Amino acid sequence: MSKIVRVILCGFGHVGRAFARLIETKHADLERRYGVDLRIQAVVDIHGAAVAESEGLPLGALADLAAAHRPIETLETFGRPGLGAIETIREAQAEVLVEATPTNLVDGEPGRSHMIAALDRGMDVVTANKGPLVLAPTELEERARASGARVLVSAAAAAALPTLDVGRLCTAGARIESIEGILNGTSNYVLGRMDEDGCTYEEALGEAQRLGIAEADPSLDVEGKDTRSKIVLIANRLFEKTLTLDEVETEGITRITRADIQSARSRNQVIKLIGSARWRGGDLTARVAPQALDRDHPLASVGLAEKGIVFYTDTMGRIIVTGGASSPTGAAAALLKDILNARVL
Amino acid sequence: MSKIVRVILCGFGHVGRAFARLIETKHADLERRYGVDLRIQAVVDIHGAAVAESEGLPLGALADLAAAHRPIETLETFGRPGLGAIETIREAQAEVLVEATPTNLVDGEPGRSHMIAALDRGMDVVTANKGPLVLAPTELEERARASGARVLVSAAAAAALPTLDVGRLCTAGARIESIEGILNGTSNYVLGRMDEDGCTYEEALGEAQRLGIAEADPSLDVEGKDTRSKIVLIANRLFEKTLTLDEVETEGITRITRADIQSARSRNQVIKLIGSARWRGGDLTARVAPQALDRDHPLASVGLAEKGIVFYTDTMGRIIVTGGASSPTGAAAALLKDILNARVL
Repeated sequence: MSKIVRVILCGFGHVGRAFARLIETKHADLERRYGVDLRIQAVVDIHGAAVAESEGLPLGALADLAAAHRPIETLETFGRPGLGAIETIREAQAEVLVEATPTNLVDGEPGRSHMIAALDRGMDVVTANKGPLVLAPTELEERARASGARVLVSAAAAAALPTLDVGRLCTAGARIESIEGILNGTSNYVLGRMDEDGCTYEEALGEAQRLGIAEADPSLDVEGKDTRSKIVLIANRLFEKTLTLDEVETEGITRITRADIQSARSRNQVIKLIGSARWRGGDLTARVAPQALDRDHPLASVGLAEKGIVFYTDTMGRIIVTGGASSPTGAAAALLKDILNARVL
Repeated sequence: MSKIVRVILCGFGHVGRAFARLIETKHADLERRYGVDLRIQAVVDIHGAAVAESEGLPLGALADLAAAHRPIETLETFGRPGLGAIETIREAQAEVLVEATPTNLVDGEPGRSHMIAALDRGMDVVTANKGPLVLAPTELEERARASGARVLVSAAAAAALPTLDVGRLCTAGARIESIEGILNGTSNYVLGRMDEDGCTYEEALGEAQRLGIAEADPSLDVEGKDTRSKIVLIANRLFEKTLTLDEVETEGITRITRADIQSARSRNQVIKLIGSARWRGGDLTARVAPQALDRDHPLASVGLAEKGIVFYTDTMGRIIVTGGASSPTGAAAALLKDILNARVL
C-alpha cells in the first residue's frame, strides 16, 4: 500500500513544466523505490488553474500540455480559466505546495502570499522561488512553526547542487565555520570564457545569452544579486542569525576586464564570483565579490555553467560539493528531493 | 527538556578514543543546537569495560583517560576489568551501539557479534567497522528489520567525506547510474607524491608510513582491498543488488612505477586508484583499479590524503564531493553525525 502525497504546483513556467514532466516520468519508479504515490492535485499559473477531484491530475495529459508549452487552464476536463492561486491553495486537498513562480526581489510576491496561504493550512512548502525566502524569512518561519509545517528550499539554494542538505545533514554535529560558493552559473560561464579563450566580458556574455545560459536581462546574475540571495538563504539556515540582503556587501563581475583576467593568469590564479559567509564570535557576515583564486583552490576548477560550495568545519575538515545540472530538470529534481525528504524518507 | 540518547561504545582504539573526546568537547553544544543530551553509558574494549549506573559515564574523566591512552577498565569508580563486550551490550541501557573495533575481513569478528547482539535488543548500530558490513550484509539487514533498528555506516564508508548521505538524501528521487571514488587516503597519498615529486613507489610509501598516514602494514590500502570494501559497502546501499567482495575485480597500486606516472603526465593525465560501480539493466558491477584520469576529470585534483566521490545521476547531472578530514576525529565526527541523523534530526 503506497503512501499518497498530494502536491499543488504554483507556477507553470520552465521549472513548473519540468516538474510536471519529471513526476510523469518518475511516478512508477518513485512508487517502487520509495513506496510513494505522488499526485499533482492542482496546478495554477497566472491565467487559471487545473484542479483534480480526488485521484490527482492525469500525469500524461499534464506532461503533454507542459511539453507543448500550453497554458494550464486549457487542460481538458480539469482546466479552470480564471481560478487564482490563493483560491486554489485554499481549496485543493494537498500536503505540499510546490512554489515555482518567478523570483521577485522587491516584495517577494506573488510567491510570499502563496507560501503563507499554504503554511496557514499546515501544508509543507517546497520552493524554487528565492524572493520570499530572502525578504520575509522570519514571517515564513513563524507561520511554519505555528502550523507545524516546513519550508524546504533546495531548489532555490542551488537546485541540483546539494548545499543545505550537506550543511545540515551530512555535517550534523560539526560546526560550520565558514562557507564559500560559486552559486551563479551565468557569471561563472562568463568568467570561464574570458579566462579560457580571452574573450571580452561583452563577447562572453553575448555568447551565454545566445546559448540560453544567461537571461535576456542578465543583471541579477552579473551584478551578484542572484549570488547574494543564495548566500543569504544558505547562511540564514546554517548559522544562528538572520541576515538581510542589504547587510551583504555585493560586487558583481561587470567591471572585470580582460586585463584583470590576464593579470590573474600570470599569477597562476583564476577569477571567480564568490559568495561567502563566516560565523565568528556569534556574528555572521557575508559578502559577494569577484576573487582571484589560486589554481589549487577547490573552487578554481568549477567549470563554465557548473556551481560549487565549500564548507569549512571544525571536526570534518573542509567538504567540497560541485556539479549539479543547471537546468529546469535539475531544479525540478531538487523540488522532488525536498518532497521526498519532507514526507517520505 | 533535552532528549536523552545513550550510547555504548565498543572499541577504545584511535577512533573510539577520538569519539569519547569529541562527545566531551561537544556535549553542551549538542544540547543547545539539537536539544540532545548525548550520554556514553558504557565503553568496552578487549580487556574490560566501564559501565555507568544511570547518568552516563563522566565525560571529562573519560576524555582524560582517552587522551592518556589508558585502558577503559581503569576508569575510576566505573571500570570493570574483564567484563566482555557481549555482556556489556546485553546489560547496559542504551539506544545506540557505536562499533569501533578493528575491521576484520576474514569473518568480521568481533564486530559482527557485537552488532547482532545490539540489533537483537533493538539498538541502532552506528559503525566505523567495515568487516561485518561487507561480509554479512544480509544477516545484519535481517536482524535490523526484525527489531526495527537501523545500521548506519558513514564512518565506515569514507568517514568525514559524505558519501551515502549524498547518494540517498541529497539525490533522493534521482537515479544514480554509476559512482566512482578515490576512497583510500594512503593510496592517493602515495600516487600523489610519485606524481608531484617523482618519488618511487617505495619512497612515497615509506614517507606515508613515517607521517602516520599509512599503517605499518599498508597492504589493505595499497592492494586495493580497503577501497574494495568501501565501494561494496556504498554500492550495496545505493543500488538494488548485494555484491560480495569476491565479485569485485580488484587491482591495487603496488605495480605502478615511476615510468607509468611519467607516461601519464606526458599525456596530461594523472593516475588515481578508483573504486567504481555501475548499475545498468538491473545489473550491478564494481571494480577497483588504478586509472589514468584526464587533468579535468573531477577527481584528478583530489590531493594527497583527501578522498572524493562522483555520483552520475539521471536528472541532477553529476555531483562531486571531495575533502573530509582523514583522521580519527573525522571518523568520530562521522559517527556523531549518524547518531544525530538516526535519533535526533
